Amino acid sequence: MKLKLLYACIVFTGLTASALAQDAVDAAATAKIREEGLNHSKVMDIAFNLTDVSGPRLAGSPGLKRAQDWAVAQLKEWGMANAKLEPWGKFGKGWEVQKNYAAITVPYYHAIIAVPKAWTPGTNGPIKGEVVLVKADSVAELDKYKGTLAGKIIIFDTKPLTERTFKSDAARYTDEELDKMAQATMAPRGQRNNAFDPNSPAMVARRKAIGMRTAITAFLLNEKAGLILSQARGTDGTLFTTNGASYADTAKAVAPELETSSEDFQRILRLVKAGKKVELEADIKTEFFTNDLQGYNVVGEIPGTDKKLKEQVIMIGGHLDSWHAATGATDNAAGSAVMLEAMRILKTIGFKPKRTIRIALWSSEEQGLFGSRGYVLNHFGDPKTMELKPEAAKLDAYYNLDNGTGKIRGIYLQGDSAAGPLFKTWLEPFKDLGATTVTISNTGGTDHQSFDAVGIPGFQFIQDAIDYGSRTHHSNQDTYDRLIEDDLKQAATIVASFVYNTSERKDMVPRKPLPTPPTPPAGAPARN
Amino acid sequence: MKLKLLYACIVFTGLTASALAQDAVDAAATAKIREEGLNHSKVMDIAFNLTDVSGPRLAGSPGLKRAQDWAVAQLKEWGMANAKLEPWGKFGKGWEVQKNYAAITVPYYHAIIAVPKAWTPGTNGPIKGEVVLVKADSVAELDKYKGTLAGKIIIFDTKPLTERTFKSDAARYTDEELDKMAQATMAPRGQRNNAFDPNSPAMVARRKAIGMRTAITAFLLNEKAGLILSQARGTDGTLFTTNGASYADTAKAVAPELETSSEDFQRILRLVKAGKKVELEADIKTEFFTNDLQGYNVVGEIPGTDKKLKEQVIMIGGHLDSWHAATGATDNAAGSAVMLEAMRILKTIGFKPKRTIRIALWSSEEQGLFGSRGYVLNHFGDPKTMELKPEAAKLDAYYNLDNGTGKIRGIYLQGDSAAGPLFKTWLEPFKDLGATTVTISNTGGTDHQSFDAVGIPGFQFIQDAIDYGSRTHHSNQDTYDRLIEDDLKQAATIVASFVYNTSERKDMVPRKPLPTPPTPPAGAPARN
Repeated sequence: MKLKLLYACIVFTGLTASALAQDAVDAAATAKIREEGLNHSKVMDIAFNLTDVSGPRLAGSPGLKRAQDWAVAQLKEWGMANAKLEPWGKFGKGWEVQKNYAAITVPYYHAIIAVPKAWTPGTNGPIKGEVVLVKADSVAELDKYKGTLAGKIIIFDTKPLTERTFKSDAARYTDEELDKMAQATMAPRGQRNNAFDPNSPAMVARRKAIGMRTAITAFLLNEKAGLILSQARGTDGTLFTTNGASYADTAKAVAPELETSSEDFQRILRLVKAGKKVELEADIKTEFFTNDLQGYNVVGEIPGTDKKLKEQVIMIGGHLDSWHAATGATDNAAGSAVMLEAMRILKTIGFKPKRTIRIALWSSEEQGLFGSRGYVLNHFGDPKTMELKPEAAKLDAYYNLDNGTGKIRGIYLQGDSAAGPLFKTWLEPFKDLGATTVTISNTGGTDHQSFDAVGIPGFQFIQDAIDYGSRTHHSNQDTYDRLIEDDLKQAATIVASFVYNTSERKDMVPRKPLPTPPTPPAGAPARN
Repeated sequence: MKLKLLYACIVFTGLTASALAQDAVDAAATAKIREEGLNHSKVMDIAFNLTDVSGPRLAGSPGLKRAQDWAVAQLKEWGMANAKLEPWGKFGKGWEVQKNYAAITVPYYHAIIAVPKAWTPGTNGPIKGEVVLVKADSVAELDKYKGTLAGKIIIFDTKPLTERTFKSDAARYTDEELDKMAQATMAPRGQRNNAFDPNSPAMVARRKAIGMRTAITAFLLNEKAGLILSQARGTDGTLFTTNGASYADTAKAVAPELETSSEDFQRILRLVKAGKKVELEADIKTEFFTNDLQGYNVVGEIPGTDKKLKEQVIMIGGHLDSWHAATGATDNAAGSAVMLEAMRILKTIGFKPKRTIRIALWSSEEQGLFGSRGYVLNHFGDPKTMELKPEAAKLDAYYNLDNGTGKIRGIYLQGDSAAGPLFKTWLEPFKDLGATTVTISNTGGTDHQSFDAVGIPGFQFIQDAIDYGSRTHHSNQDTYDRLIEDDLKQAATIVASFVYNTSERKDMVPRKPLPTPPTPPAGAPARN
């Protein structure tokens, strides 16, 4: 079915010559946008407020609230309409770290680099204990530890991660890579979804590992273990964080758990495996927030001015929430700052758009695109049933930014081949800034998918990766320092220009045929 | 004078054809050494004991003492003769970190990555205070802060270090780079010593900066500042450490000072410069050790067996001391482990050397090659006067290893061109392991210089840098994880083979003419 669609689209694009006339770029407007975006940028100041000033922005946390409140106030200060926090549904508990200290004390003193796993409890004051290596491949094997782990520091046998790679942490796309993306074709659905075979050996092993881990967690809690150390991904002082428990208000209790830098983890593990006594002291305090379990998105608008078209809406956005070990600069203060700056640029040049332009800064993206999914469900329709609301027909397009600090190199069509010629034309004035590539491919893992799921054109820009995968994405090193000013200026300028062009076009951005509601194979876990 | 020497050496090497006969490599012995070194290595176990088990090995610290005691015991266990700690002279105070905790508490909580500067005091229990940016280009400007800094956390305006480089952290020498080294010629002395012009703008600026820093330090101590934050070199959680005060038992008191990861430092600085209130809490405890101000080296021997030649000695060594933020794996547990392993290999294959083989693991290298300089002064002579002792004539050669975990790619002749053909022959059997290059060049910064200074052939091997400069050299990330097992095995095998060849040769390694005592230019600081 997907293949048929692809051919249909190619035939269709062959017929769009007349449509192209309406897509000629307005040179004077582009020049204004470039001047404001490249030479009078506020993007770094915005990013500073979202990162350094607000702090970590885990879903539901006080840090996210600070950033959301700042963004709403800033949108209002710029004169945007309808700037507010809009609830999208129930999320769960907020959580933040309020004390984080751990150190080896025997055989010698060494403060370790480690971060509490999100939504785990603290140690209830300072603790001190011996490290015990727990090895169990089955629940029965845990029995041997019964009655021996109270107050102890628990470590598991885990492979080291610290081999040197001789590859640079940071990179930009090469011309060759971009060419390959431009020439990509969509794989048929069957081929793309192999990973979800619930009976594949990988999925079976994964379910077994999750089951075992759940059993161990319950056992350690019951045994009153003092603290669990688990090895974080990352090297050289960089550590990537995850959650160690559910944010749900009904979540089961777990033991305190520290995601530990691989070097510190392996040092402790090597010593314990060699029969050396290792002791740790720790003082971890985390706080849960349950007074408001709702999730919120930031929204704000530049209202449309064309009598007929102002009911139609163009949306731009990115998620504002982050992980907790740093200030989520590249994931995704960068995208949020660029989108805010794009709004500021359009307002500052005095643009009176035909259609309404709306920004949304999502929350709980990191837990499953919840903010954007909730918003889409409330405004546009349910992807499970494909029952759409009237607003769905009026949302022209959604543009998303969430792939780090790297500049825009082009755009993913997400299979919407009819939009290709349009976007190629719109990228023309930004060739000198390195943005040229239009690819038919999908890219996943972020909020444009929520729109795509109900048939609304939703796009993510192609961005240079820089050190997103190696250093910043969910890590303790995702800080303001990682932001590249020139790249963010370029991105905001291009987004503003895309929004301008979308707003002024006679027709809406062409759509793919509506998706049919997914019918998962029997026995497969539901995809949501 | 140096130029003349170079030509003389070239002529001399032209005449060494007859000497080459004695340097033919013993294939059977090489095979035994390779078998033991490459297939039955203990080098990683040795390194584990020097790093993970002993801990940080700052000069004079309990960690260094643990490593020294372990090395002496290990040498004895292997059956080495005269294994002991040998004092080399007065060093100063020992020092270690016993508690290291610091966190931002306002505007939100964030534990920072930071390490006390070596030989600085602690905070005398937990402290909490506001961060104050101190800006002063002259002592007079400090006056404005009088009476305002008690208990405060001090920060200085410092440029960020955190730009992305797009270069890999780790690298090995390319064939091209090795060729260039092989073709190098010695620069005449005048050209090489320009950096020491005491009136150069760089030196004048340096003296001014040091003077200003000393004045600020005294001022802050007098004002009872709570803690100084200074920006460490390094990014992504890697931070490079230094000392913040002298190790001398007569050293002036200073305020507590934390070398802070550039990301944490810059976050605090950006907030303070933007007028935001920042508070920190910290609890730093450091301990000084003054019961023994002596410095010690580890020594041990395989005694020579040739009636005439056993009075002659070949030495190998590396420094065992490290900086304090990690376990000094590449600087220089690696070199120490390789040298210990080379001794073990030679002992294990049952080698009865003609000449005596002696290992020395130096201390206080990081403060100025003190361990090796003291040893040279006690045994061989004074480089200041060039008055030599009888032992100097009997020390055949000294081989050093101290450039990280990288395998051996060749050897620096340190200007001793007559040794070139010899070493080329000795490297022949290790072509397959990547060791081929003999360069006339000097390399500095480590203990072979102490021998070279009194005219004893002292050599450092060429080693692949890996991530020595970017990640490990003096950093908090110089841990066991950074060691590359295959490289250390290769190095130990080659060192053992060089020692074998040196021991069995009819003649000693040819020497450069004795250096003349240095006569520094008038007004220049003494070089020692």
